[in-house]
Amino acid sequence: MNGTTTIYVDTPLDARLVEELCEGVAPHRILRPAVERESVLAAPAADVAFGEAEVAFGQPAVEDVARSERLCWLHVNTAGFTRYDTPEFREMARQKGLVVTNSSSVYASACAEHAVAFLLGAARRLPDALASRAANGSMDWKRLRAESRTMAGQKVVLLGYGGIARELVKRLAGFDMEMVAIRRRPTGDEAVRTVPPDHLAGELADADHVMNLLPDNAESRGSVDIEMFSAMKPGVVFHNIGRGTTVDQGALLDALRSGHVAEAWLDVTDPEPLPDDHPLRAEPRCFITPHIAGGHGDESRALLRHFLSNFRRFMSGAPLVDRVM
Amino acid sequence: MNGTTTIYVDTPLDARLVEELCEGVAPHRILRPAVERESVLAAPAADVAFGEAEVAFGQPAVEDVARSERLCWLHVNTAGFTRYDTPEFREMARQKGLVVTNSSSVYASACAEHAVAFLLGAARRLPDALASRAANGSMDWKRLRAESRTMAGQKVVLLGYGGIARELVKRLAGFDMEMVAIRRRPTGDEAVRTVPPDHLAGELADADHVMNLLPDNAESRGSVDIEMFSAMKPGVVFHNIGRGTTVDQGALLDALRSGHVAEAWLDVTDPEPLPDDHPLRAEPRCFITPHIAGGHGDESRALLRHFLSNFRRFMSGAPLVDRVM
Repeated sequence: MNGTTTIYVDTPLDARLVEELCEGVAPHRILRPAVERESVLAAPAADVAFGEAEVAFGQPAVEDVARSERLCWLHVNTAGFTRYDTPEFREMARQKGLVVTNSSSVYASACAEHAVAFLLGAARRLPDALASRAANGSMDWKRLRAESRTMAGQKVVLLGYGGIARELVKRLAGFDMEMVAIRRRPTGDEAVRTVPPDHLAGELADADHVMNLLPDNAESRGSVDIEMFSAMKPGVVFHNIGRGTTVDQGALLDALRSGHVAEAWLDVTDPEPLPDDHPLRAEPRCFITPHIAGGHGDESRALLRHFLSNFRRFMSGAPLVDRVM
Repeated sequence: MNGTTTIYVDTPLDARLVEELCEGVAPHRILRPAVERESVLAAPAADVAFGEAEVAFGQPAVEDVARSERLCWLHVNTAGFTRYDTPEFREMARQKGLVVTNSSSVYASACAEHAVAFLLGAARRLPDALASRAANGSMDWKRLRAESRTMAGQKVVLLGYGGIARELVKRLAGFDMEMVAIRRRPTGDEAVRTVPPDHLAGELADADHVMNLLPDNAESRGSVDIEMFSAMKPGVVFHNIGRGTTVDQGALLDALRSGHVAEAWLDVTDPEPLPDDHPLRAEPRCFITPHIAGGHGDESRALLRHFLSNFRRFMSGAPLVDRVM
C-alpha cells in the first residue's frame, strides 16, 4: 500500500503500549475512539471517526464497519468474534473485500492451560482437598484419596478443533489420556484422532471428560443440549472453555441434579457474569471461573504485538495470521 | 526358592483384593496381622507372628524386622519409607541380606499430576477465580486476568530427582517451561537438565516455581530452610509434594508474611494434619491439601499388583522394581 494508512484502534492500551503501537505503525496514523472501552465484550458505540480508517484493531461497531467505504482489514482483539460472525456480515465482508482476522493465537495457550487446570482440578479434587482438614487415616481422608484420579487412561472428547484444541492436545501429550476431537470437517492433519459430528454420540458414551471449546455462532448456539448430555456416560465431567451460549444451561442443571453429569467446570456462562441467584451457582459440583481462561499477565502486550506482526504482513501484502474471513 | 514361602501382609485390602492376593501368590502362605491397620502412616505395633515370614508387604514394625531371622524381602506399601531409612536399619539390612523395595511407581503418576495441578492452580489463580463473581470489565476481573499466567517461559526448580520428578517432567513437556532438577549425584541420564546441590542458589535465583519432591531422611530434614528461601526470587511460588519435615515451616511462614514467597502450595506438612490454629492455616496465600497427592481410585489394586509383579520377580530370582536397599 502507498501513502498514509489510517488505523482505528479501540483496544484498551496503557500509555506504554500506545507508545509501542505508534512506533510500530509509524509513519501511519492512529485514530483512537473518544471514549475508552471498559470491556472488549461490551457492545461498542458507533463512532463517526471510524469512516476514515482503512485498518481497525479492536471491536468496532458492526454498523460502523458496514457503513465504512474505506475499511479493508479488521483485526478483532479477541478470540471470539460473535458480533461479526453472521451470514449478513460475512456477505458484506465478501462484497467489500474486507479481510477479518482475530486474536485467537494470543489466547489459545492460556485457554489451553485453563482447560488442563480444570481437568486436573477435577482429577485431584482440588476444591474439596483445599477445603479439607481431614486427618490421615480418617474416613474423609480415605474418601478424598479414593475419589482422586489420575488422568492416565481417561478419555476426553474435545468439542471443536481450533487454536485452543491444538494447544491443549500438545499439553496433554504427557498424560497418557485418550483424546478425540469432534470437528465439522476433519482434515486429517489434526494432532489427535478427529471425527465428524455424526460420530459424536458414540464418542461421548465412554468419555470421562467432555471439553467444550466451541465458539458462539448460529450453528453452535445451544448445541450442547439435553440430547448431548444424555449421550454422555453417567459420571462424566463437563468443562466449558468455549462460550456459555453454546450450552443449554437448563439441560446442564438437570444433568447435574440427577448426577448424570458428576461435575461441571465452567469458565463461560450465559449471561456473564452469572447472577448470584442463578441455580447453577447453588450446585455443589458446579465450579465457575469468571471468563478468565484466556487471561495472562502479558495479555495487552501480546495482543498488541500480534496486531503489529499482522500489520507488517498487511503492509507487505503477506498472508495474515488468524484470518477468519 | 523352593517350598512354601510365608508372606506377611499388613496392607489394608478389601475382600476382593485379598482374594486377588491369595490367587496371585498361591500356593504360598499369607499371614495377616491380628488387627487391621487404619493408616499406613501410623506407627505399626509389633506382631509376634511376623517371625514366620520370609516376605513382608506393608509397614511392619522395625523391631519385628530387626528380630526376624527369616525375612529376606520387605516390600513397603508407600513411596516414603522413613521408619526404615536410618543408618542402623540399612546396616542391619546389609548384614542380613534383606532386600527392601517400596511402592514409589504406584504413587509417582498421581503425585506428578498433583504437582501439575498445583502449578496450574497457581498460574490460573484457581482458588481466587473459583470464589470470584467479578463482572467482565470490572477492576476485580481485570486484576484476576492480569494476575493469571501461562506456564510458557516460567522456570521451575525440582528439589530431588526420583520417580515423581521423572513423571512430572514427562507431563510438563508440552508446557514450554524451563525445568531444572537438583540431585545429589546427577547421572547424566535424567530427562531434564540436572545439577548438584552446589548449583542450587544460582538456580533458585531466577525460578518462578520451586517444587519440593524430597523424601524424609536425616539429610533432607529441615533442609528447605531460611537460607534456601532467601536464595529464591521474590515472588516465587513454593510447592511441597515431598515430605513436610523437609521444610523449616517457621522460615516458610516468615517468607510468606514478607511476601518474598508469594504463595505456598503444600500437600504435606509437619505435623499432619496441620492443627487448625497453625499460623500457616491463617496465611491467605498458603494452599494446603491433606497429603492426598499419591491417591487415586485404584490405589489399593495398583499397590497389590505392584507387589504381585515384584513377587513373581522375587520367586524367579529376577531384579526387583523400586529397590531402595
